[in-house]
Amino acid sequence: MTQLMNRCYRLRRRPAGTATAEDLEFVEEPVPDLRPGQALVRTLWLSLDPSNRIWMSDTHYHLPPVPIGGVMRGLGIGQVVQSWRDDLRADDLVSGYPGWQDYVIADAGDGAFTVVPPPAPEPLSALLGPLGHTGITAYLGMTDIGRPRPGETMVVSAAAGAVGSVAGQIGKALGARVVGIAGSQRKCQHVVADLGFDACVNHRDPAWREHLDELTPDGIDVDFENVGGSIMDHVLTRLTVGGRVVLCGLIADYNGYGAPPDGRGRLDIAKTLMVKRAVMQSFLVLDHMDRFPEATTYLGGLIAENKLRYDETVVDGLEHAAEALTGMFDGANTGKLLVRVAERMDVPGEVQA
Amino acid sequence: MTQLMNRCYRLRRRPAGTATAEDLEFVEEPVPDLRPGQALVRTLWLSLDPSNRIWMSDTHYHLPPVPIGGVMRGLGIGQVVQSWRDDLRADDLVSGYPGWQDYVIADAGDGAFTVVPPPAPEPLSALLGPLGHTGITAYLGMTDIGRPRPGETMVVSAAAGAVGSVAGQIGKALGARVVGIAGSQRKCQHVVADLGFDACVNHRDPAWREHLDELTPDGIDVDFENVGGSIMDHVLTRLTVGGRVVLCGLIADYNGYGAPPDGRGRLDIAKTLMVKRAVMQSFLVLDHMDRFPEATTYLGGLIAENKLRYDETVVDGLEHAAEALTGMFDGANTGKLLVRVAERMDVPGEVQA
Repeated sequence: MTQLMNRCYRLRRRPAGTATAEDLEFVEEPVPDLRPGQALVRTLWLSLDPSNRIWMSDTHYHLPPVPIGGVMRGLGIGQVVQSWRDDLRADDLVSGYPGWQDYVIADAGDGAFTVVPPPAPEPLSALLGPLGHTGITAYLGMTDIGRPRPGETMVVSAAAGAVGSVAGQIGKALGARVVGIAGSQRKCQHVVADLGFDACVNHRDPAWREHLDELTPDGIDVDFENVGGSIMDHVLTRLTVGGRVVLCGLIADYNGYGAPPDGRGRLDIAKTLMVKRAVMQSFLVLDHMDRFPEATTYLGGLIAENKLRYDETVVDGLEHAAEALTGMFDGANTGKLLVRVAERMDVPGEVQA
Repeated sequence: MTQLMNRCYRLRRRPAGTATAEDLEFVEEPVPDLRPGQALVRTLWLSLDPSNRIWMSDTHYHLPPVPIGGVMRGLGIGQVVQSWRDDLRADDLVSGYPGWQDYVIADAGDGAFTVVPPPAPEPLSALLGPLGHTGITAYLGMTDIGRPRPGETMVVSAAAGAVGSVAGQIGKALGARVVGIAGSQRKCQHVVADLGFDACVNHRDPAWREHLDELTPDGIDVDFENVGGSIMDHVLTRLTVGGRVVLCGLIADYNGYGAPPDGRGRLDIAKTLMVKRAVMQSFLVLDHMDRFPEATTYLGGLIAENKLRYDETVVDGLEHAAEALTGMFDGANTGKLLVRVAERMDVPGEVQA
């Protein structure tokens, strides 16, 4: 039998500023032999997320940094192709952290994967989008922190992004007026025409602040924040008394941008919250795994009622993952950015040790 | 009958930086005749608070700024000396906003006062301290936002101040380890020896940051923040995952101080909250008047159990109010700073119109 080979990305160095493909090394290595208590998982889908960039840095941001030389961490969906574990069977679909590679050896008790209970959703990739961490993050932020009341005004930054697009549609379902912020006219058009947002401003338009002001005459009750930086600063100047800031992401900061490029000073956030008796709260989906069933039931219901549309940008082939990540920070994708690594294959079941 | 005269402070100009006595004008004016639907209230006690300084500025901070030439706004306790109102009787004690003056004419429906139900507490000034806005602010911040669990570590800035001293003692009653931050060795000693805090650091000691780090080896779960500025910035660097910041006051900012004087940059608060999936929340006691009975019952219970000790710094005479306010920003007072304006006098009841 030919030795099974594994293509994988290893972290060559920590990025300075924007991550580039050169920060990673794409190598091919033999897959080690399986030992008792291990399973071999083949990666089918990888999810590209802003957190990939965080894990490349030396900051402990929810999870420890990827060590230099280590396999790049990534969320994804895999298929068990061989198992010497009691809790996994060959052909099981699993979701978790395969990393940026074709194959991963999953040790019993390492918590890297959970089994996807059949029937798997169609398409399978929805598990990385509206029915996965992405959708559940939007759900938790909206129901626990944002809680818009009917008629309130909500703003979502990165409105065409994976989390923002779901958060905005949940806001609409809850009766809020939803204004998006996105990085191009095309994306703005998309979130209004296809996703049902009430309006959207393009933050690359120099007059975007004035546009947002006009679109939120009564202020902003909820900010679902994905971007941070000078975009968030302006949104927060319009916060109403009792406003809520769902601190979901700060993608503007992840590449190490400092002060806003236009020379504005940064907003005094504490003073803003103080004056508006407002709240700013962050959260992590992994802290709330007990609520995943509640969340996926709600999100599945919205999809069934045609109230939640989701988009995917699919990149074919593991070999394109690094350049796709770079593109994400330039706003190249709409909706969830995914890498299709392999098709599900026929695996003889019950090939237990 | 001699014309009744009213001494009052009128706002001469908005302070530049620290408020000074020269920003106010102390004048004597005749009290206008009472009209139907009005009551005449004599000020007994005035409460001096950081919000006085805010109201002198041109910022709308919970309430509109005091207009130039207007009577300085202030919380206090008064006694009705004459009433042509159906809802107030002569000799009633009232709490609310008499302003910095001997007498105030209270119009029906202006909401400036509520009647103190008999029996009045002894001393009456407790209504401006632990049983008034001060204590209720501490109660709401601790029970709604801070919520320390037994064994958690809580830090209180302005620990010897009116709100901080109550918040810290509530923290102790809830089982937290409480570390104070105060502005002198004497105050630190007081909050530990007299108020039962576990420890206290003097922020005028150049090594206070190292001391705080040593006293909070497991990080800080709750920050009851009264000060802001570079003091808050350091506290927040020690926030634990899931930490809570009760944004009660930012006295360091009220006098318009900008960047910290030691040349440190300001902390990126959004990023800090994001990394620690933490919450920062502000609130205003006036938004929660329905909960005052619950709060005063709890606080009265703590006083009865000897678990809540409160201090007053009493300044005698309305003519000393302005200099006392200036002193507050230098940290001259311990506990609640009050001005005794007049003693309760014998008023014949039932002098209705």
